[in-house]
Amino acid sequence: VAYFEKMKVKIASICFVGIVLIGLLILRQNLNGVIHKRNTMVCPDTRLEHKDEKNLPLIYGITSTYKRHVQIAELTRLSQTVMHVPMFHWLLTEDAHSKTSLVADFLNQSKLSYTHLFIKNNLTSGIVKDLNTRNNALHWIRKNVQPSTNAIIYFMDDDNTYSLRVFDEIRKTKRGSAWPVGLAGGLLHEGPIECKDGKAVRWNVHWWPQRTVPIDMAGFAVHVNVLFEKPTAEFTDRPDIESVFLESLGFNRDNIEVNYCKDVLAWHTQTKAPVIVE
Amino acid sequence: VAYFEKMKVKIASICFVGIVLIGLLILRQNLNGVIHKRNTMVCPDTRLEHKDEKNLPLIYGITSTYKRHVQIAELTRLSQTVMHVPMFHWLLTEDAHSKTSLVADFLNQSKLSYTHLFIKNNLTSGIVKDLNTRNNALHWIRKNVQPSTNAIIYFMDDDNTYSLRVFDEIRKTKRGSAWPVGLAGGLLHEGPIECKDGKAVRWNVHWWPQRTVPIDMAGFAVHVNVLFEKPTAEFTDRPDIESVFLESLGFNRDNIEVNYCKDVLAWHTQTKAPVIVE
Repeated sequence: VAYFEKMKVKIASICFVGIVLIGLLILRQNLNGVIHKRNTMVCPDTRLEHKDEKNLPLIYGITSTYKRHVQIAELTRLSQTVMHVPMFHWLLTEDAHSKTSLVADFLNQSKLSYTHLFIKNNLTSGIVKDLNTRNNALHWIRKNVQPSTNAIIYFMDDDNTYSLRVFDEIRKTKRGSAWPVGLAGGLLHEGPIECKDGKAVRWNVHWWPQRTVPIDMAGFAVHVNVLFEKPTAEFTDRPDIESVFLESLGFNRDNIEVNYCKDVLAWHTQTKAPVIVE
Repeated sequence: VAYFEKMKVKIASICFVGIVLIGLLILRQNLNGVIHKRNTMVCPDTRLEHKDEKNLPLIYGITSTYKRHVQIAELTRLSQTVMHVPMFHWLLTEDAHSKTSLVADFLNQSKLSYTHLFIKNNLTSGIVKDLNTRNNALHWIRKNVQPSTNAIIYFMDDDNTYSLRVFDEIRKTKRGSAWPVGLAGGLLHEGPIECKDGKAVRWNVHWWPQRTVPIDMAGFAVHVNVLFEKPTAEFTDRPDIESVFLESLGFNRDNIEVNYCKDVLAWHTQTKAPVIVE
């Protein structure tokens, strides 16, 4: 009997150790989950907060850039904006015959998720300065992104200013959406300024009021689905480049989504060329 | 005997449960520590990384700002820079008769640590546009900061561009330190361009080369201790405002600390005034 009782103690001991180990493993896994969640979520003063970051649609921010004295300053400033944005991939298209080491080194040090593209713009024969670089990014998306991907494209000039709140508007985009842009088209805010049920009921337009969708490049976003539905749509050499591009994707003032048009969330700022003597 | 053996099993059970609970408590506490650490440290893509954030010297970023079309755009962009900087307090001094609701609302929404000051600049009788606003911030520090505080002041114009790395240079400041500034004084980089053992051995200067410390406002930081040693030092209405201020605090080209002078970490960028028709 004593032998069996001793065995019972041993078995009980082994069972306990087993249960304890399993319990510890479960706890560890759960706590790891918490750590992981917190890592991506809890930087309240530094990032946009989202409950479930990985389920957010990806934003492809497309930026054309060209060599000039203020280039790295502009890219530094813009990178500090997009560093706050989760689920963001930066498509930087250089106006150059090959990647410059200046921009390559800058991107490499940035820790951002990015793709460095390059193509030479044709400045002598056109109205729009950065046609090739913009179309290069569209080409890259059509070649490298799955048509079923839940992703949205947004064109971000390197000298513009973007409120972090604009990225929330971008992520609401189902097919194509718009919002007002500050200091554009001769106005304090150009674009939709009154909206109802997701549509614009009033637009603020001064320059070329006949445009189909009168909005600055910083004032719209398009879901990649639409790019695959209209596989040849691209930017053309027109002064109303944004409107013509949106029209070629099937958008007009009535069907473009306008969820928010109260405050300005993006500004068409421009930087002075510095006077350098050396 | 069987009774005692049963008791043994019970005692063993209780002991195991107790040990398990203690183990779980210890594990929980340790993991909490990890979580807490990670919260403040691991946002590698969004913040400067510092091992022990709370022991860092505080940075007082001092920004003069005035009403104009691009004001909120500039403040938005600058706020996105300083949002990445730990242990930072923003002293924003408005050039106004009272706090404007535009700036107050902006700061209130920003989640930053800030103090909103105001004073009217006297634009009609001087060279320097923002003399009163700058001195107002110095006055606030001398009145509200303990002389023993480990804090450093840095003047950040709202249209300039700041690499996040400049804040590492600022925090090295023992009494007063300097670094080169991009696109300033007619040069691609003005200020110390060769340094050795914490001192500048060569300066790059074009405009007014006779200045005692030839550096732009974005190119120096001063420990608050020094402000209390020289309690009357302030900005005066001089074109070489930075140099005269640094001189009044006891600095010259030889005793100002220069730890790093290889890359440009701050740029004197300027924004174009937009053409608005309305």
